[in-house]
Amino acid sequence: MSGTKSVIRIALDGTGGDRQANFYKGIAGSVRFASLVNQQAEFIVFGEHELEEALAQEGIERSRYEFRLAPQAIPQDADPKSVLKDYQNSAMSQAIASVRDGEARAVVSAGGTGPLVALSRHILGSMNKLRPALCVRMPAGPGHYTLMLDLGANAEAHAEDLKDFALLGHAASRFLLNIDRPKVALLNVGSESNKGNALIREARDLIKQHSKLDFQGYVEANRIFFGDTDVIVTDGFTGNVALKAAEGVAHIFAHADGIKRFFAKLAMPDWLQPWQYNGALLLGVNGIVVKSHASARQEALAVALVEAVKAASTDLDTAMHRELDSLLNQEA
Amino acid sequence: MSGTKSVIRIALDGTGGDRQANFYKGIAGSVRFASLVNQQAEFIVFGEHELEEALAQEGIERSRYEFRLAPQAIPQDADPKSVLKDYQNSAMSQAIASVRDGEARAVVSAGGTGPLVALSRHILGSMNKLRPALCVRMPAGPGHYTLMLDLGANAEAHAEDLKDFALLGHAASRFLLNIDRPKVALLNVGSESNKGNALIREARDLIKQHSKLDFQGYVEANRIFFGDTDVIVTDGFTGNVALKAAEGVAHIFAHADGIKRFFAKLAMPDWLQPWQYNGALLLGVNGIVVKSHASARQEALAVALVEAVKAASTDLDTAMHRELDSLLNQEA
Repeated sequence: MSGTKSVIRIALDGTGGDRQANFYKGIAGSVRFASLVNQQAEFIVFGEHELEEALAQEGIERSRYEFRLAPQAIPQDADPKSVLKDYQNSAMSQAIASVRDGEARAVVSAGGTGPLVALSRHILGSMNKLRPALCVRMPAGPGHYTLMLDLGANAEAHAEDLKDFALLGHAASRFLLNIDRPKVALLNVGSESNKGNALIREARDLIKQHSKLDFQGYVEANRIFFGDTDVIVTDGFTGNVALKAAEGVAHIFAHADGIKRFFAKLAMPDWLQPWQYNGALLLGVNGIVVKSHASARQEALAVALVEAVKAASTDLDTAMHRELDSLLNQEA
Repeated sequence: MSGTKSVIRIALDGTGGDRQANFYKGIAGSVRFASLVNQQAEFIVFGEHELEEALAQEGIERSRYEFRLAPQAIPQDADPKSVLKDYQNSAMSQAIASVRDGEARAVVSAGGTGPLVALSRHILGSMNKLRPALCVRMPAGPGHYTLMLDLGANAEAHAEDLKDFALLGHAASRFLLNIDRPKVALLNVGSESNKGNALIREARDLIKQHSKLDFQGYVEANRIFFGDTDVIVTDGFTGNVALKAAEGVAHIFAHADGIKRFFAKLAMPDWLQPWQYNGALLLGVNGIVVKSHASARQEALAVALVEAVKAASTDLDTAMHRELDSLLNQEA
């Protein structure tokens, strides 16, 4: 691998994701794709011997990647506590550690959310003592995106956590959306102030206190894709359900039978299409961590790798850290 | 109005819903439509004087409806506590009371969920001491439906409430789905047993204990429309968000620009189409209560009226009560 300054190294956990047919070939193909799209990117791939072979067969330029044998995979549903104890040598662990050690600028994994969040927090540490959250750029009209978080990094959330997510979303939007003062809203079941549960109302009161946040109140789930707001804050359980419910309907259209499928392709707005492939960023840890869809379709992992390169090239983690320092100092 | 035995009388709260242009004409039109579709149906309409005029102008056969002046409307976001105190004479209150008093077999309202649930529980009482829930028939493939509840009758839920929703869904499916022993599942962010939050896991343990329930474990939100299960149980906050997120994506397709809109119409599966018009049944009160979409499009209210007639013709409330008696006796 080269040592010049403009190189961006990405660590890839090559063990995560659903083990479908052509599992290794799919991963190797996504590395090849990402290496072609990003000429300054190089990859450190952690995984089993079979993956090393698949990478060699893929015909990727040898200088563009390094393979490290790390055959231990973490089951998708492993208990986060056991992960810290039993999987210290896993490919996922080693890939995250390579970011901590400065070998790589970002890590990509299609492994389980629970293990990825637990290991990232443990190895990289939390950013500004905030609670980390999974954040996705949701398409919201031609050329527009809305950040939505948390999408499932946390199964439970307190009002303080939702406030943390608002701060993380605000800090990230300068770099992910090119917006300095994003509109921030809470996902709720109605727009009137008395709607929702106690968690939502408490979180609203906390977020409102931040003078630097442009808080807009509530947004409903049927408006997620319409760009009413730049950042949508929700707990990881609700966010995950909302995202998957939307995916379910999109899937009906994309997989209709026969001629309807043809019409669905024509009907799908261009701006909506990349959505299901986008990786999710784990914001709030000291390092760039990208979670790819577990379905391990080649496109999804390739897009996640490209997203990681993009985030690394804007120094997303250190830039967010600076932004949060200024936000939180003002608060004190 | 006629007094023969086959008549089914439906009470309509004529004050609820968004006050768009042609508000009264829209309500009158839906009564006309429902009276044409269901020849045995008659309507008791509660509302303002303007609605009486609109009904008269609509040309509905005079024997098919009775108008009762009840001009007090409840604001969509009224506090449920104030509703019981300040709106005892509202059109919604009177319409629900007409069910309690045996004048009508079911009540339909496009008013606010909070007021409708509070007044229905207060006036009609809870069925078998269970917590009431809003239930929708979600399309799940050609000719197939899945019951999903709660869709927002309750902003907060305990594990005991989710168990109640499972029992209500089971009891209703014989009459709403023609299935004797429905598959019941909990909405969660993953299918593995350790997924989700404490509420979900506690609810799972409670529901599993019922030997008569065919409990299937967890279902994810992207599978809502695929008929994996007959009853999907969730808390009202999550259910409402899931439903609206799905509606948001469907809306993108249905309202695409220009030629894409044409293709979207062709691409939409036939079985998915009626979905957004279906009324929600408030299960778990002693009477048939149907909540129509607040958007007050004429189609939505008309479909809700037709659903109410259907539920009344199967004696949904008394039939569910019998079913629940047997379910809960077995439990004791």
